[in-house]
Amino acid sequence: MDFSIRAANVEDCKDIARMLMELAEYEKVTDHVKVTQRDLEQDGFSKNPFFHGIVAEVPEQLKTKEAGHTKIGYALYFYSYSSWSGRAVYMEDLYVMPEFRGKGIGKALMSKVAQLGLAAGCNQLNFTVLNHNKSSVDFYLSQGCYDLTDKMGYHCMRCEGEALEHLAQP
Amino acid sequence: MDFSIRAANVEDCKDIARMLMELAEYEKVTDHVKVTQRDLEQDGFSKNPFFHGIVAEVPEQLKTKEAGHTKIGYALYFYSYSSWSGRAVYMEDLYVMPEFRGKGIGKALMSKVAQLGLAAGCNQLNFTVLNHNKSSVDFYLSQGCYDLTDKMGYHCMRCEGEALEHLAQP
Repeated sequence: MDFSIRAANVEDCKDIARMLMELAEYEKVTDHVKVTQRDLEQDGFSKNPFFHGIVAEVPEQLKTKEAGHTKIGYALYFYSYSSWSGRAVYMEDLYVMPEFRGKGIGKALMSKVAQLGLAAGCNQLNFTVLNHNKSSVDFYLSQGCYDLTDKMGYHCMRCEGEALEHLAQP
Repeated sequence: MDFSIRAANVEDCKDIARMLMELAEYEKVTDHVKVTQRDLEQDGFSKNPFFHGIVAEVPEQLKTKEAGHTKIGYALYFYSYSSWSGRAVYMEDLYVMPEFRGKGIGKALMSKVAQLGLAAGCNQLNFTVLNHNKSSVDFYLSQGCYDLTDKMGYHCMRCEGEALEHLAQP
């Protein structure tokens, strides 16, 4: 299929916000999504961005049937650090609209994040996956990724809300 | 106990590299540690740093008995992003030398990361823990953190080495 991958710019935030919600619907967690188009614009495209993005686009003649979208996939990533291995890149999101799946677009998006990471001197690409999303887990394993939780016992932890406010008290 | 927490600077990298190796010894993974003092200097204190750090210091009269260290704990962190919740801070490492544990220094380091995160507009503090490190897990749970792996099925995934090189092929 004819598609291209390019760096996201601030004009893409509307479509990223739309697809981010589609992904949340797929994962049945729409009530967890607090991020808006405006947040993406501010947090990703100001002086010290909290993330970077890439988008997958198809030409006009392949646009989605219902709404006429040409931006049909995206990935968000940011640079991070492993105190054992050094520079790393973290992929926060990877999404391709359902009618465009199975055509190598997700693989191409992930490959681009890997390229960008290697070019920045990173030794690792890290991300999380919901364990019950078996098709995603299988895809990642087929790409040579491994499961740090299963293999080494890594657990993801979080502090937020009132607990975070309380923790921050001196 | 008399101690202080401050932002790390490039002169702290020697001590951070020392403590990073002590932490790896504690977790029995010294062969995994590739990061050197020089890496920390370059990756944390150049124009676009991959991480930030804070150190815990004690006054001269409390320095370690054997080697006379006054820098006795540290945390590394970086800013990240959740496509659901927005700005986030990720704590990569938290370490206090064994003879200084149980005195609130680890809590103070983590509290500082939380403060810095909130000041930067973050809604979450994220990190990973090795599940078999029960004392750490219990400490984090006691601070109001929760386990995303147990509660929601998040698994940490990684691509590195030849698999990462392969993934990056167009």
